[in-house]
Amino acid sequence: MSPKITTELLKQLRQVMKSPKYVQEPVQAYIVPSGDAHQSEYIAPCDCRRAFISGFDGSAGTAIVTEQHAAMWTDGRYFLQAAHQMDNNWTLMKMGLKDTPTQEDWLVSVLPEGSKVGVDPFIIPADQWKRMSKVLRSAGHDLVPVKENLIDTIWTDCPERPCKPLITLDLSYTGVSWRDKIVALRSKMAERKVLWFVVTALDEVAWLFNLRGSDVEYNPVFFAYAVIGMNTIRLFIDGDRMMDPAVREHLQLDSTLEPEFKIQVMPYGSILSELQAVGVSLAPKEKVWISDKASYALTEAIPKAYRYLTPYTPICIAKAVKNGSETEGMRKAHIKDAVALCELFNWLEKEVPKGTVTEIIAADKAEAFRSQQKDFVELSFATISSTGPNGAIIHYKPVPETNRTLSVNEIYLLDSGAQYKDGTTDVTRTMHFGTPSAYEKECFTYVLKGHIAVSAAIFPNGTKGHLLDSFARSALWDSGLDYLHGTGHGVGSFLNVHEGPCGISYKTFADEPLEAGMIVSDEPGYYEDGSFGIRIENVVLVIPAETKYNFKNRGSLTFEPLTLVPIQTKMIDVNLLTQKECNWVNDYHQKCREVIGAELERQGRHEALQWLIRETEPLSRVQ
Amino acid sequence: MSPKITTELLKQLRQVMKSPKYVQEPVQAYIVPSGDAHQSEYIAPCDCRRAFISGFDGSAGTAIVTEQHAAMWTDGRYFLQAAHQMDNNWTLMKMGLKDTPTQEDWLVSVLPEGSKVGVDPFIIPADQWKRMSKVLRSAGHDLVPVKENLIDTIWTDCPERPCKPLITLDLSYTGVSWRDKIVALRSKMAERKVLWFVVTALDEVAWLFNLRGSDVEYNPVFFAYAVIGMNTIRLFIDGDRMMDPAVREHLQLDSTLEPEFKIQVMPYGSILSELQAVGVSLAPKEKVWISDKASYALTEAIPKAYRYLTPYTPICIAKAVKNGSETEGMRKAHIKDAVALCELFNWLEKEVPKGTVTEIIAADKAEAFRSQQKDFVELSFATISSTGPNGAIIHYKPVPETNRTLSVNEIYLLDSGAQYKDGTTDVTRTMHFGTPSAYEKECFTYVLKGHIAVSAAIFPNGTKGHLLDSFARSALWDSGLDYLHGTGHGVGSFLNVHEGPCGISYKTFADEPLEAGMIVSDEPGYYEDGSFGIRIENVVLVIPAETKYNFKNRGSLTFEPLTLVPIQTKMIDVNLLTQKECNWVNDYHQKCREVIGAELERQGRHEALQWLIRETEPLSRVQ
Repeated sequence: MSPKITTELLKQLRQVMKSPKYVQEPVQAYIVPSGDAHQSEYIAPCDCRRAFISGFDGSAGTAIVTEQHAAMWTDGRYFLQAAHQMDNNWTLMKMGLKDTPTQEDWLVSVLPEGSKVGVDPFIIPADQWKRMSKVLRSAGHDLVPVKENLIDTIWTDCPERPCKPLITLDLSYTGVSWRDKIVALRSKMAERKVLWFVVTALDEVAWLFNLRGSDVEYNPVFFAYAVIGMNTIRLFIDGDRMMDPAVREHLQLDSTLEPEFKIQVMPYGSILSELQAVGVSLAPKEKVWISDKASYALTEAIPKAYRYLTPYTPICIAKAVKNGSETEGMRKAHIKDAVALCELFNWLEKEVPKGTVTEIIAADKAEAFRSQQKDFVELSFATISSTGPNGAIIHYKPVPETNRTLSVNEIYLLDSGAQYKDGTTDVTRTMHFGTPSAYEKECFTYVLKGHIAVSAAIFPNGTKGHLLDSFARSALWDSGLDYLHGTGHGVGSFLNVHEGPCGISYKTFADEPLEAGMIVSDEPGYYEDGSFGIRIENVVLVIPAETKYNFKNRGSLTFEPLTLVPIQTKMIDVNLLTQKECNWVNDYHQKCREVIGAELERQGRHEALQWLIRETEPLSRVQ
Repeated sequence: MSPKITTELLKQLRQVMKSPKYVQEPVQAYIVPSGDAHQSEYIAPCDCRRAFISGFDGSAGTAIVTEQHAAMWTDGRYFLQAAHQMDNNWTLMKMGLKDTPTQEDWLVSVLPEGSKVGVDPFIIPADQWKRMSKVLRSAGHDLVPVKENLIDTIWTDCPERPCKPLITLDLSYTGVSWRDKIVALRSKMAERKVLWFVVTALDEVAWLFNLRGSDVEYNPVFFAYAVIGMNTIRLFIDGDRMMDPAVREHLQLDSTLEPEFKIQVMPYGSILSELQAVGVSLAPKEKVWISDKASYALTEAIPKAYRYLTPYTPICIAKAVKNGSETEGMRKAHIKDAVALCELFNWLEKEVPKGTVTEIIAADKAEAFRSQQKDFVELSFATISSTGPNGAIIHYKPVPETNRTLSVNEIYLLDSGAQYKDGTTDVTRTMHFGTPSAYEKECFTYVLKGHIAVSAAIFPNGTKGHLLDSFARSALWDSGLDYLHGTGHGVGSFLNVHEGPCGISYKTFADEPLEAGMIVSDEPGYYEDGSFGIRIENVVLVIPAETKYNFKNRGSLTFEPLTLVPIQTKMIDVNLLTQKECNWVNDYHQKCREVIGAELERQGRHEALQWLIRETEPLSRVQ
């Protein structure tokens, strides 16, 4: 992959940063965050402004361009990728390393006195605005909202904002009707004494109305906002999507309804003025609830005295705890997903030795097998199909320039997942199709020990996920190895593959406590730059555990793997496992054999079934 | 222990809360934090205002009195103690439990519209003021500084502020002269471009000037502030302590010195006006560095635009990393401390069966043995000498009303430590002088497994201590047990037994990364209300570790126990230990035998030596 040449673009950007056509006063720095107006992690092509200006297209990163400098902040997953994709105009700021300055501190160190720092107020989250603005102000600078997005002014061939048809989900998938979700939300609003709730995150809008879309690749969401009052429901959405009879019936748009469930459909672009109107209408002490991660623009639309800000919205928290129908759907989706992967790995085992399978071919084949499964919608993220040194690029996506051929001499890492109408999957397996070295097996086994330590962990009800992160690292740490990413993220139910408010990471402290019904990933890894990458990932469900003393009736929790795909035993150095860990692997494989075996049988996939049986032979430790 | 009757006091407080003599406008609530004007954890009797008004005298807690209510927030260590010490006027707010409101939220829920909430601006830290003030303001109330402390107005027999002689520490103890410390501080100030640094924490003043005092029991500190400029040093301190020739020589008060090392001695009470004068003198962009935990009063003395606030001061961070002389001193202090405890435990083993040893007698005996050691100064905290159910009161201190007799039928927990001129100790041992039950041994062994998991942990350089907290809990969690306190705290070098900025706790996220030379405690526990308490505590030094792969040269760390006191093997269920854990215990006991054995021998304490040898017999697991 060759870097994007950005010299001309940066020149243009620096011109518009001074142009009275776009800015009231010249700005000496311009911030380009990676999100969209909904602070989404995955964004539509028209919102990929940071990638456009810098070339770096990883999922997380913030660019800042000053008159002299251009700098990019990103985290450990993307250090290599960003370094590859950006030209010499850019400085890479490695977040999480001790000597890397924060964006604010860096700005203070490079800006001339009394500078103005511009940013699109719809793209920057209010909490981040506040933090940056404070530091800049105390150093004599100003953070200023620039109404017109400056990247858009120089992005001549910017794609259109997508506006694709919607999918309605009935009760068998969602377990709860949108009306009942509105009722529950209003009761949370009443508890907190707020009159209005603003839904800004795309997955929260989708979840609330039991609708899905495809405006953003991999995330079944659609561009919309909602404003929920105690007696009104306003949905801000564009296009003729609301003309679809199925959608009209699902939302009961043409029925005679109690007024408090009547949905008013409004243009997407009218959210700001409508919210300002709500703001003006408020009596003293009346409050509007909005996420503190919502955009600065929308937050400012509500006068300060009327704002009720929380880091997590009640929808975010309700959405994280899956109900019986959702859990059942997730189980089904993971069974289908495992069937597809058994087919894939069986096929790879035969084809790789021929030297004809590239990373892209393998990724396409994985998608092909998944698409044969019932209710398959799309992939849940760009498949990470990486062999040898590419495996060390944590969020690698194969492109023709980097596409490597799988061989019997290198480790292959596949991190992939899909959206099915009944659930979302995300699974990583690391395989060797020849004979792994002792060192590769050693590293793999430490990663596996970490995976098991989390998966089998028992902890009191109410524990936050970040407290489990070190369990995943302990075996690696003992040998002086580590990985620079978190251990797990929340997973949506036919929704975003990354969702809050729970997760397992040393980087978060504000995560919500884990409770039964939450679903997270468990994915420790180890990466050796220039050589290989190892990661073992299951999606796991938080379930009640049985313990001897049950935390004085506080309750015990543990995890149940939803992902049921064999972990390659060839990669395991069995003598590094404890008996307990060895039993865990054998029990897990036994379950894969039973559950996935039955489904392979049902689907008549006999060759893949034979592969599954071979791959799930019990391990035994040399005593 | 019977609760303090506070009906009359609360009535008086509520009167002064409305009295124009003390408040400009009536306050509807008054906050009584537990600190002093230096935000100390341990405070002088004259500063024990929260204990005076409520009866609860634990080390952490905040009282809030409104016209109708009186409520006390404290953490898990003190739930039982606070419940015992407070009468029915008080509501106990158990911090850390899910349903306990924050102080701000509680105030908002109980106050009438537009209330004023008063607090002494010298006692409340600026960061806390800011947080509370914001929440109160957004709910229509006001946090107001009340210049005269309202508790002091009703506390007729309030003791005088202590003003005791100082101790000077030479280079053999401190390793670095106060002049070199000033030079290092000024270089940190230059790095951050600040002109002034305000030293507000008592242990930071003591550390900076290599002085110690005894104004506060257990903490060898003295009431003082310091303001360090690039060319000036101002020390704010009362009494004739500066007349002591040893102090004058140590500080070179009468020498002809370069002006930048000339110490100006000023009255303690003049800090506010002097700081205001500094504030007025500043040119634009000139900054004053002060901890964000300093009092609201001092912080406000510096105009907002000139403040440079950080959670940890450069002194706090420098102080935490012990140099060679300090580490050597700490080792010596721990050897002497272990000698005293071997004497004590040997004595207890003989005396307890006679039924004549109470908790108080045991605590006094521990102090007597310690005071026989060289350079003993005082205890480092109130000895927790607790048997049976008293052991479950985490920060219990025996008093005549609760004093229990040690017996062969109950677990005995002793958490104690001392200040020696060369170091500070803090050690907890849990013993049984008869035959422990299987359940007691089971719980003890889980706690021991947690203690070992932390002590033997290997982790990359730069890891924050809070990431190690779950290691201490894992064995307990597996059986559905837990403890409601952190696992470790920083320990000063002949200074406060609790010090920042590092520690090992699920409750902190803002701790500074661990580095070689830092000293923390490792003290998991288990408590069964009404029955017993178990805790195993060593003070441990962060040291470089040898690992196979050394984190790509980032460096590996682990801990070395400084505390060398046998862990009672009678309490261990050896079959619950892994071979690795069993080896850890045996290696630890071997080191106790060698190092402490030699010192017992040297001191001619032969009977205690025999006890040590018996108690350090190697364990062996049944295979």
